[in-house]
Amino acid sequence: MLPFETSEYLERIAKTKKRMAERGIEVLLVVDPANMNYLTGYNGWSFYTPQVIVLSEALAEPLCIVRGMDANGAKVTTFLKHENIIGYPDHYVQSPDRHAMDYVADLLQQRRLDKKRIGLEMDAYYFTPLAYEALKRGLPDAAWVDANLLVNWVRAVKSPREIEYMSQAARIMERVMRVAIDAVEPGQRQCDAAAKIYHAETAGTAAFGGDYTAFVPMLPTGVGTSTPHLTWSDAKFAKGEPTILELGAARHRYHCPMARTVFLGKPPQKLADTASVVLDGIAAGLDAAKPGATCEDVEGAWRRTIAKHGILKDSRVGYSTGLNYPPDWGEHTMSLRPGDKSMLEPNMTFHLIAGIWMDDWGIEISECFQVTPRGAAPFCNMPRALSVKP
Amino acid sequence: MLPFETSEYLERIAKTKKRMAERGIEVLLVVDPANMNYLTGYNGWSFYTPQVIVLSEALAEPLCIVRGMDANGAKVTTFLKHENIIGYPDHYVQSPDRHAMDYVADLLQQRRLDKKRIGLEMDAYYFTPLAYEALKRGLPDAAWVDANLLVNWVRAVKSPREIEYMSQAARIMERVMRVAIDAVEPGQRQCDAAAKIYHAETAGTAAFGGDYTAFVPMLPTGVGTSTPHLTWSDAKFAKGEPTILELGAARHRYHCPMARTVFLGKPPQKLADTASVVLDGIAAGLDAAKPGATCEDVEGAWRRTIAKHGILKDSRVGYSTGLNYPPDWGEHTMSLRPGDKSMLEPNMTFHLIAGIWMDDWGIEISECFQVTPRGAAPFCNMPRALSVKP
Repeated sequence: MLPFETSEYLERIAKTKKRMAERGIEVLLVVDPANMNYLTGYNGWSFYTPQVIVLSEALAEPLCIVRGMDANGAKVTTFLKHENIIGYPDHYVQSPDRHAMDYVADLLQQRRLDKKRIGLEMDAYYFTPLAYEALKRGLPDAAWVDANLLVNWVRAVKSPREIEYMSQAARIMERVMRVAIDAVEPGQRQCDAAAKIYHAETAGTAAFGGDYTAFVPMLPTGVGTSTPHLTWSDAKFAKGEPTILELGAARHRYHCPMARTVFLGKPPQKLADTASVVLDGIAAGLDAAKPGATCEDVEGAWRRTIAKHGILKDSRVGYSTGLNYPPDWGEHTMSLRPGDKSMLEPNMTFHLIAGIWMDDWGIEISECFQVTPRGAAPFCNMPRALSVKP
Repeated sequence: MLPFETSEYLERIAKTKKRMAERGIEVLLVVDPANMNYLTGYNGWSFYTPQVIVLSEALAEPLCIVRGMDANGAKVTTFLKHENIIGYPDHYVQSPDRHAMDYVADLLQQRRLDKKRIGLEMDAYYFTPLAYEALKRGLPDAAWVDANLLVNWVRAVKSPREIEYMSQAARIMERVMRVAIDAVEPGQRQCDAAAKIYHAETAGTAAFGGDYTAFVPMLPTGVGTSTPHLTWSDAKFAKGEPTILELGAARHRYHCPMARTVFLGKPPQKLADTASVVLDGIAAGLDAAKPGATCEDVEGAWRRTIAKHGILKDSRVGYSTGLNYPPDWGEHTMSLRPGDKSMLEPNMTFHLIAGIWMDDWGIEISECFQVTPRGAAPFCNMPRALSVKP
């Protein structure tokens, strides 16, 4: 049932342990749901209560600590021996009297993992200050190390199977975007377009279905296009207005995102001109995205191209993407922006997303790509253009 | 464009400030997206980067601090004056060199809110230990108070308009569950059922559309029903197997969730018997859910009923629900379980969810209800039964 061979999970664990050793981390507590999935296969919508994968040379296999009712879920979705899956009692859930991390601390004591250098994902979603304080209180002899993004960095270069899942997501994404562009019509409710988008994302193709995506569909319209992260309402699309479609598709939690902009009617000249500049900028960015280039090189190529036309974008133009859970399909490692000197390697995967947001209008066009030895290879085959529906 | 009158937001803020005063909290940093929405209307899928609503008697109006590109989103979705919406520069986003909470700390300094007793939502999703450390470093003269759930408790009793939105969500939920039960058929792919569920959730009714839900559809099937939080795969539903449908519908971020169980074929006697016990237990729980009863009274009524048949459930049987964002539609305040002595009041709203998970099968049936002066009033009108499809 697992989407990868056990050997691939073991390889990921070995790579992670090597980085732990380099940093003197004896025990790593992995709480990021994507990292938990990456290392063990664990996959359930249970990250709304605390859960941890424990990695250590002192353990033959990682421990998976989840809420009691989710332990069977770990048995179904991971390669771990059942003895290494531990469910905590339900009275630790959302209780004013105790925290699930009290239980985790007690368990680490029992397993003699308490007097160790313990790495924590200090800025991971779903890891809270209260959880951190419970751990510190329960493990007074531990030394704490910020291991934020340690596993995320292991995830940066994708395996052939990971690339395959992102390519499958791309096949779904192409369908989703066609459905979405068709659905944006004057007089149609935004919620009905969102419904069709969700349907296409999830039904996938005849050969494979789609997984849920780490962002919900975002489809700001009219003045809403001045900002990227609005969802939908019951209001109807109107002639003479732009709509941004920032959408995704996922396969076994691996994403291929895509943004396009639709205009109903004849677009104002400034919007058409900006679209054309954005397209030139994306092409320049993709051209620069070769192994050995840095993230800031890619952004620089984009920036220089749009600057020629007097356009400035002060936010990053993309990020590393792949495996993820809500609320973000970005991996938090590499950003395409000035100062990011991370070097591109083959089989890294990025979302280059050119978003320009003005006072009362905006435009987004994007491309998700794989770095290959010859340069950027977009995952999707979809016209890169402002979609004008006269 | 806002779903509530400004006066209702102002009332919520006044109630919150009253509770702050009772606890000596001079400044409250609200980071829970549901609480941010509750107090100001703010609504965007932007909680994957740090964002804060600042409440203080020293401020005429709350401050809304979000990522720069989301500031226009706050202008569109809140009642706040534009001068109180502050966007931080993009180089604070997912950067190894600085944290967005450094910016927030600097801003509080500038506004002379630094030498105060500051309340923090210490166990809120999306508030991390690193964020907390940035605040402490940047505001060395502040005194810190754990204000976790302070706003959530203000949310516990719903206004007439909130009840109206939950009722609208219930109309959508009834449709969603009918679509879902229809879609679970032998030989049909799980992903196709999930696609239809998403479509129904989002398209809503002819009168109003649906919002995204805080949980994705959960539809564990076969042995997967031994655990609650699995989503879907490409595999097909099979004759002779149960499928749990734990679904939701939402309206302006207000939820009405519902769980039902479908069996394809003739259910084994143990499953049919358990369903009948569960239904008796739910009826007993609903009967007990009157103003003045406590949460543990409701659970006790359920527990005593099922115990007569030798069934034990060691996890809570429900929780307060309403306004929320992923990953949880529960409000983290009241749980229907032993020891929770919170007293039910009119217009509190709960999800009573009876989940029984055995070694290799399970069943869930639930009811979302409003506490009225006369007792529990379920939001939905949907047969409460094991759905058998012969």
